[in-house]
Amino acid sequence: MSRERLIYLPLGGAGEIGMNAYVYGYGKPGKERLILVDLGVTFPDMDSTPGVDLILPDMTWLKERADRLEGVFITHAHEDHVGAIAHFYKDLGAPVYARAFTANIARRKMAEHGHLAEAVRVMSAWPEQVQVGPFNVGFLPISHSIPESAALVIDAPNGRLIHSGDFKLDQTPMVGEAFDPDLWAGVCKDGVRALICDSTNVFSPLPGRSEKDVGPAIETLVAGAAGMVVATTFASNVARVKTLAEAGQRAGRSVVLLGRAMQRMVEASTETGVLSDFPHTISPEEARDLPRGNVMLLVTGSQGERRAASAQLARGKYRGLTLKEGDMFLFSSKTIPGNERGVIRIMNQLSEKGVDVVDDHNGLYHVSGHANRPDLEQMHDVVRPQMLIPMHGEHRHLREHAKLAEAKGLQSIVVVNGMMMDLTGNTPKVAEYIETGRTYLDGSVKVGALDGVVRDRIRMALNGHVIVTVILDEQDEPLGEPWCDVMGLSETGSSRAPLVEVLEADLDQFLKRAEPKTLKNDDKLEDGLRRVARQTTQGEIGKKPEVSVVISRMR
Amino acid sequence: MSRERLIYLPLGGAGEIGMNAYVYGYGKPGKERLILVDLGVTFPDMDSTPGVDLILPDMTWLKERADRLEGVFITHAHEDHVGAIAHFYKDLGAPVYARAFTANIARRKMAEHGHLAEAVRVMSAWPEQVQVGPFNVGFLPISHSIPESAALVIDAPNGRLIHSGDFKLDQTPMVGEAFDPDLWAGVCKDGVRALICDSTNVFSPLPGRSEKDVGPAIETLVAGAAGMVVATTFASNVARVKTLAEAGQRAGRSVVLLGRAMQRMVEASTETGVLSDFPHTISPEEARDLPRGNVMLLVTGSQGERRAASAQLARGKYRGLTLKEGDMFLFSSKTIPGNERGVIRIMNQLSEKGVDVVDDHNGLYHVSGHANRPDLEQMHDVVRPQMLIPMHGEHRHLREHAKLAEAKGLQSIVVVNGMMMDLTGNTPKVAEYIETGRTYLDGSVKVGALDGVVRDRIRMALNGHVIVTVILDEQDEPLGEPWCDVMGLSETGSSRAPLVEVLEADLDQFLKRAEPKTLKNDDKLEDGLRRVARQTTQGEIGKKPEVSVVISRMR
Repeated sequence: MSRERLIYLPLGGAGEIGMNAYVYGYGKPGKERLILVDLGVTFPDMDSTPGVDLILPDMTWLKERADRLEGVFITHAHEDHVGAIAHFYKDLGAPVYARAFTANIARRKMAEHGHLAEAVRVMSAWPEQVQVGPFNVGFLPISHSIPESAALVIDAPNGRLIHSGDFKLDQTPMVGEAFDPDLWAGVCKDGVRALICDSTNVFSPLPGRSEKDVGPAIETLVAGAAGMVVATTFASNVARVKTLAEAGQRAGRSVVLLGRAMQRMVEASTETGVLSDFPHTISPEEARDLPRGNVMLLVTGSQGERRAASAQLARGKYRGLTLKEGDMFLFSSKTIPGNERGVIRIMNQLSEKGVDVVDDHNGLYHVSGHANRPDLEQMHDVVRPQMLIPMHGEHRHLREHAKLAEAKGLQSIVVVNGMMMDLTGNTPKVAEYIETGRTYLDGSVKVGALDGVVRDRIRMALNGHVIVTVILDEQDEPLGEPWCDVMGLSETGSSRAPLVEVLEADLDQFLKRAEPKTLKNDDKLEDGLRRVARQTTQGEIGKKPEVSVVISRMR
Repeated sequence: MSRERLIYLPLGGAGEIGMNAYVYGYGKPGKERLILVDLGVTFPDMDSTPGVDLILPDMTWLKERADRLEGVFITHAHEDHVGAIAHFYKDLGAPVYARAFTANIARRKMAEHGHLAEAVRVMSAWPEQVQVGPFNVGFLPISHSIPESAALVIDAPNGRLIHSGDFKLDQTPMVGEAFDPDLWAGVCKDGVRALICDSTNVFSPLPGRSEKDVGPAIETLVAGAAGMVVATTFASNVARVKTLAEAGQRAGRSVVLLGRAMQRMVEASTETGVLSDFPHTISPEEARDLPRGNVMLLVTGSQGERRAASAQLARGKYRGLTLKEGDMFLFSSKTIPGNERGVIRIMNQLSEKGVDVVDDHNGLYHVSGHANRPDLEQMHDVVRPQMLIPMHGEHRHLREHAKLAEAKGLQSIVVVNGMMMDLTGNTPKVAEYIETGRTYLDGSVKVGALDGVVRDRIRMALNGHVIVTVILDEQDEPLGEPWCDVMGLSETGSSRAPLVEVLEADLDQFLKRAEPKTLKNDDKLEDGLRRVARQTTQGEIGKKPEVSVVISRMR
């Protein structure tokens, strides 16, 4: 009979930045009682996931073991940590635990999917703990770029684990709790088996700056502006939104919140008491009647998202408001790698309108929400774990974080999605490799990343699409000539005749010469027609298209 | 009778970074004799130009006036300045002028398109000038990130113009000529009507650094490496390639050039005498037999290009060489905005192999080839033009550069592609707006950016594609049921039946209920079938697909 073990299994978030989902378990092998920490999403892009609405972690492994799942714990309300809970609630069935602000956001998501508020249980900050199966779990406050972020203290029968969540060491976070080294030292003083730790900023060599540091620069900037001021940041960075709003207020400007996320976040933080003295806001309609110098807009879309308020203002009008020569637009944000094109597009559109764009390239108007390299080391020193497992990072971040830990004598190992680790002994050991992956929310359905649906779309985008239709009579003889339709391909090529006509002529030739056994066999006929269609298109326009063949038989 | 005028007309490169093409003309309105400066390309991306091979400027305006074109002048051999010459040589017919190294590269491109070497004429550096129509044009050496970059001195009957080309003010460029302030002052001492000036780095506040500055850091890094060293940079940055190779040589490593561009550039610069003492190189085959610590690879693909040597090494093997734990990979380059995802993908693949990646985030291993803000001001001061026209920049760069010039009392105006400027008077005036745009090289054919071909491909990528086939008999009655084929869409949706079957059932219903006048009319029938297909797909899977309808009539 085998012994109980403590396992850790990332299903998302380890080896990527996004869609966090980490499983912990305790019990006999294959019978462990489980908890899930975070259940987030990743955002699609045109390169690899065109047309996809949202990327979710593949939860197959956990769904098949849902009867062993005791609870889902959400560290904070960023989309990459909470965004998928409503999509999987029915499949997993377990209660969701979160602090008040996170729970408020989580319940809004649940409601959109028709789930009841009770699905989400509100927890207080440490020292409250909840017993779920073999675990006792508590929410230990830590600073980040969103209110009420928490690390998790996970007490297993064989020791304490600290799951850091996303964090920075901010003593003056403006909204929410400051990092409290004494509280943390107390929690960790009797020994921590493992610290599972955020790795995002391991390549940033300088100590992180406080949210408080950006206030004066923003205030000076806004005070010196003449026309309308527009500022964008992540709506969930409630502290920053407040700093921006206060800068506007001090400069005698009325504040307008634009974009649904901006309103939702201020609403949720006010409802939960996280935010108590946010400046008075006015509606876009009221703002239209004010002199431009008396208005400040706080808008969504800092990452260049095409449908967000920033992009709409840059293109033209949003809620009746337009931008003009002499206005100022502040990106109080960092552009996430991959979003550069969208952000630059907005900057140029604003430039064309004569709007002065201010961004953070000098580091004045934004600070990161993640612990930099020296802060990570400080965290290691506070927790002093027996082993350190880097998470929340691409492979290069995890590897660098593991090297950093090892350099100071901490045991560490790079664990990526699907690596089930046994943390029972003195060193972390790989117990098993689990198949993990991504699920795409595509319209209203979920499709597997490997189903080929999106791959086919990418192929059509790269190669174009030729559709060949052939009708055969009862004797398997072609009835008339084949039809062709093309989409996404040049209308004419080297022969200067329409591509469709050249294709139809070549396909007709093929049909006329085809042997009866080819004409009788759908697969052979389809293969032949596809080959001819590709060859002809290649010869005419130098591209090998995707080809769909429709064979209709008059039987 | 109207007077002669001097015109400037950017057809590419003004309002974007890429596909430079600037027209100058002198003569009576509508009869100006013309020259073209640079004829470059832009690179496609999945977001806006999936499947496209190359983006060329739309040369329609100039083609229609090819009889008035006296010559094409290429400032330097970067793809965004020379990449399109062979594609348009037949249409434009004019001779191409360039300095020796640029001409060497240009002739290779011409040869690929079957044009003779004589199409490209080699010019010496200033003071040589060539008379082309009303202009006298000379190549004035200036430093940049490629050998033999030149500004153009364009003498028109009513004054001297300086077209800066791409430049930096480097006194120690390692390969090629240093910036020579005295030479420039001499050329400009009798007055310059207009300086048409690179704007790329106008937002970089500190003075630019010299190519020489990166040498010591690179040498130290390579000297300290144990395993194989791989370094990537733009192959055309011959000075950097040399610096890297010399660092390898000094560390006792044999140098291998990997990737066609790397070999072509070293070859061209050796052939033209630009490069005379490049370290001895060995073949990949020879390198395989050496200890890893004795090898240094110089490879293409610093921007993450999927088919370049860097990406192939990161994925696995290239020319028999593989990377391993303990090797080092240096990005001696900056990632161009938009290429981040590709570069990061490579970094993570290398990390998975245990390769240590070093990039330029601390500014040690790369310097820019463009003049920073203080350098631009220095250039303004050397040239002291009557007017400054910013070029080679997105709108935001051009606007900032114009503001910079105006702040010190220079006349300036933001001129974007298609704005024909009259530079005859004391101030630049807009003469006319010309339609400009982009042409896509797609396979072997050119398609207009507005032809809808690429738009259709993007739509298929976002929405998927449904193909509906209907056959009607001689009486316009449906012959059998409609066929459906789908590509890029989930196989099943809300009803849990195959999407294709649900579609065929709904389309069949529609056909059965359709009135004779609909069945007789191809357009009406197609509209109806498309509407049903979209509605059904929307209901089943929440997506509105592209729909192709094929109607076959047995007439």
